[in-house]
Amino acid sequence: MGIVFSDLSVSADGFATGLHQSEESPFGDIDETWLHGWMFDDSGDNRAEVEAITASGATIMGRNMFGPVRGEWDREWRGWWGPNPPYHNPVFVLTRFPRAPIEMEGGTTFHFVTDGAGRALELARAAAGDRDVSVAGGPGTVNQFLTAGLLDELRLHVTPCVLGAGVRVFDGVPAQRLDRVSVRATPLVTHIVYRPRR
Amino acid sequence: MGIVFSDLSVSADGFATGLHQSEESPFGDIDETWLHGWMFDDSGDNRAEVEAITASGATIMGRNMFGPVRGEWDREWRGWWGPNPPYHNPVFVLTRFPRAPIEMEGGTTFHFVTDGAGRALELARAAAGDRDVSVAGGPGTVNQFLTAGLLDELRLHVTPCVLGAGVRVFDGVPAQRLDRVSVRATPLVTHIVYRPRR
Repeated sequence: MGIVFSDLSVSADGFATGLHQSEESPFGDIDETWLHGWMFDDSGDNRAEVEAITASGATIMGRNMFGPVRGEWDREWRGWWGPNPPYHNPVFVLTRFPRAPIEMEGGTTFHFVTDGAGRALELARAAAGDRDVSVAGGPGTVNQFLTAGLLDELRLHVTPCVLGAGVRVFDGVPAQRLDRVSVRATPLVTHIVYRPRR
Repeated sequence: MGIVFSDLSVSADGFATGLHQSEESPFGDIDETWLHGWMFDDSGDNRAEVEAITASGATIMGRNMFGPVRGEWDREWRGWWGPNPPYHNPVFVLTRFPRAPIEMEGGTTFHFVTDGAGRALELARAAAGDRDVSVAGGPGTVNQFLTAGLLDELRLHVTPCVLGAGVRVFDGVPAQRLDRVSVRATPLVTHIVYRPRR
């Protein structure tokens, strides 16, 4: 069985997204390039970390990471990523509102899970087989998995900026020691991998 | 003229001290060894960073870093550090309550500054001459200097733990990009040095 991992790009003050998400601003009222510019850098410095983000057999995400629609699914939103999303595997979206699966190009199918994070993980594990499961975000969802003890590995990509507001990694997560598995610095970002202790 | 630097040991979620400081618990209701154990490690792995913390010609600190006394100086508190504090230079304590200087052993003299961070920095620079000035803490004081644009270098010592409550580095500091000067990982801690941009 694979592990359950999560990647979050965070500011030096720990924010992984801003406030006031909208269709035009998936990460809210921040300059998103501050957090994610390193992923689109041509140097190749961070290729291994970028590739690892989607190297899973199944993906879990919160509803806000899937889109800006709130409440009932009253419009035909199919994710932020166009017709061929970067996941290329089954994606389980946590929501309170049922919706039929959406099959996209390239192997991504969005499934909507209404009975909680634990159930989403069961489905994702079954879909992933021996491969890893990714909890893609947002930070609220990652914190939910951390709090429930369901995350094996958290890969923080710490960018040199202060955001001052938004949603933080670790918010609401119980006090605990972590194992720091690795640290790697490239010019644009500091990659730090933690594992919660069991 | 030297630089103005600050060292803070922080948790993975950015807390540099806990809540509810008392005379028995200078860092409040946390296990202080989670944040500072690396400083007392015998391995020598972190010797350079430990020595750099006190390598200044003068020091500035907030009143709560100096002690648990609140309001008027109605008791003979002389700091947490015993008769020979580790600073060995003039220490300027920010407070609203005047008090005569206290000369300790080993070159440390505590001066009490009642007219603000800017004035404390003037006095510290004058005392330090060509040497650096350290803003020793706590995090509220460091954030005050960051917000005022008075800090040249912030050295974070990131420890693998989640604290979940306390006082955070960067709280209240305006959104901004930073320059990341260096990253060095040792088994117990990740040293990350930032410089605010001018």
